[in-house]
Amino acid sequence: MSGVTLVNLWMKNGAEIQRKTVDTKPFITNPRAVEKCARYVDTDLNRAFTPENLSASGGKELPYEVQRAQEINRLFGPKGSPEAYDVIFDLHNTTSNMGCTLILENSKDHFNLQMMNYIKRAIAPASCLVLLNEHPLLKYSTSRSVAKHPVGLEVGPQPQGVLRSNIFEAMRVILKHALDFIALFNEGMEFPSCTVEVFRVSESVDYPRDANGNIIAMVHPNLQDCDWEPLNPGDPMFQTFDGKTIPYQGTGTVYPTFINEAAYYEKQQAFVTTRRETLVASAIRKA
Amino acid sequence: MSGVTLVNLWMKNGAEIQRKTVDTKPFITNPRAVEKCARYVDTDLNRAFTPENLSASGGKELPYEVQRAQEINRLFGPKGSPEAYDVIFDLHNTTSNMGCTLILENSKDHFNLQMMNYIKRAIAPASCLVLLNEHPLLKYSTSRSVAKHPVGLEVGPQPQGVLRSNIFEAMRVILKHALDFIALFNEGMEFPSCTVEVFRVSESVDYPRDANGNIIAMVHPNLQDCDWEPLNPGDPMFQTFDGKTIPYQGTGTVYPTFINEAAYYEKQQAFVTTRRETLVASAIRKA
Repeated sequence: MSGVTLVNLWMKNGAEIQRKTVDTKPFITNPRAVEKCARYVDTDLNRAFTPENLSASGGKELPYEVQRAQEINRLFGPKGSPEAYDVIFDLHNTTSNMGCTLILENSKDHFNLQMMNYIKRAIAPASCLVLLNEHPLLKYSTSRSVAKHPVGLEVGPQPQGVLRSNIFEAMRVILKHALDFIALFNEGMEFPSCTVEVFRVSESVDYPRDANGNIIAMVHPNLQDCDWEPLNPGDPMFQTFDGKTIPYQGTGTVYPTFINEAAYYEKQQAFVTTRRETLVASAIRKA
Repeated sequence: MSGVTLVNLWMKNGAEIQRKTVDTKPFITNPRAVEKCARYVDTDLNRAFTPENLSASGGKELPYEVQRAQEINRLFGPKGSPEAYDVIFDLHNTTSNMGCTLILENSKDHFNLQMMNYIKRAIAPASCLVLLNEHPLLKYSTSRSVAKHPVGLEVGPQPQGVLRSNIFEAMRVILKHALDFIALFNEGMEFPSCTVEVFRVSESVDYPRDANGNIIAMVHPNLQDCDWEPLNPGDPMFQTFDGKTIPYQGTGTVYPTFINEAAYYEKQQAFVTTRRETLVASAIRKA
């Protein structure tokens, strides 16, 4: 509920997100899901921005979120066009112990990489990690992908339907620094070349299941809440309902995240593995 | 998801909940809500066991949970009759940091008080607190109220839609001891008089709201996750979205619980206050 609450506040009073050189528009992407206090009504909006959906005919007969994706694409896109918005900050919460996480989709987006670097420095010693979701199979058609520079913001842990003050404030602070960065860029500041540590999505790991698809093990207590910590081959990964430990059997150290996220049970994902990488961001300055 | 997962396991293999002298029946009260991964479909089942609902005519036209309440009352009741089941353990999870909590509805139920005493001793040094929901206005018509000795089991924190191994195991262990107690009682063991510390529900506290009913403050970070800890007059209670602290202004120390429970936003409850009390349980022995 952090994003929904912040956007509702900003729609009443936008002073906090106004910057002289930046045009901002707070927006609730899925008002019917908000009303139901659910992730979605018909289909996951944050997977709905495919070329097929965005060009589908059918109007009011289409699933609610497909209609909504088309509307968002009209308002903030069209996706991939020069008219599209420059940046969308997609505000999300997770039940996973991920802290503040910024999600990027493109390792060559130097504007976004510079923004990540700026935010990470601005909030230090608090930490903010960058998840790079640039994977041929695991990348999905997000709402934010309508903009030229999509930025996901994922803050947790927070249960669904709950507003926690610490998570709310963490999200608010990140947004403040992100808007400050854009304002500075628009005012002509030069950002010199820098490096940014990212966690690149590697693999999606499902819960162990029986032949009928029923889950037969839980995230192991040693792994639960240990998002971003190293998982080595042989480390406990799952615990079956009769108490057996299932170890991780990959080849080398990975950094799991989105561990035991509520919304991903239906996506058959217990966590994703990532690998650490350092990216170089080129210097940028407004043309 | 702890209760649902345990009951599904026990329906496949009940060895763990079998005791020689005890007849047990694992049961999913609201299968359509389980399927939707929601608390309920039409109306809250755990508030539905009123005399009006249980005697309502209308059959398939009634709200789903009212139909279901009537069915449960036929299977395990009728409520208030000699034919009703002796004990129902109602397995719940909460997003609040309540640990293991047993919920009673009647301070004169010496069988249940003896059971609480047994469980508390059996799981020590782990702790298990007793919430006494015996309040003329705040008591509600629970599913478990169909049985002669209703016992609520509330374990948290766990987000909705998530299965955490620590919460799952905690619930499982409490149930084990509860069944052991019943078996011992049925075998004729005498339980001598004892005292049981309980937290008696005192008041329901809503989130601060504006004239339109919108929430304008969050649980204060000093209170969040501090279920069962003393809250004194003047202590921070809520934090408004513009950073102001709202202190607790009651008369004397209370022990809040169900702090920031997801399912209670719709019930306009940020937490309940309780007061500590020591009850005396008479000696019991099977007649």
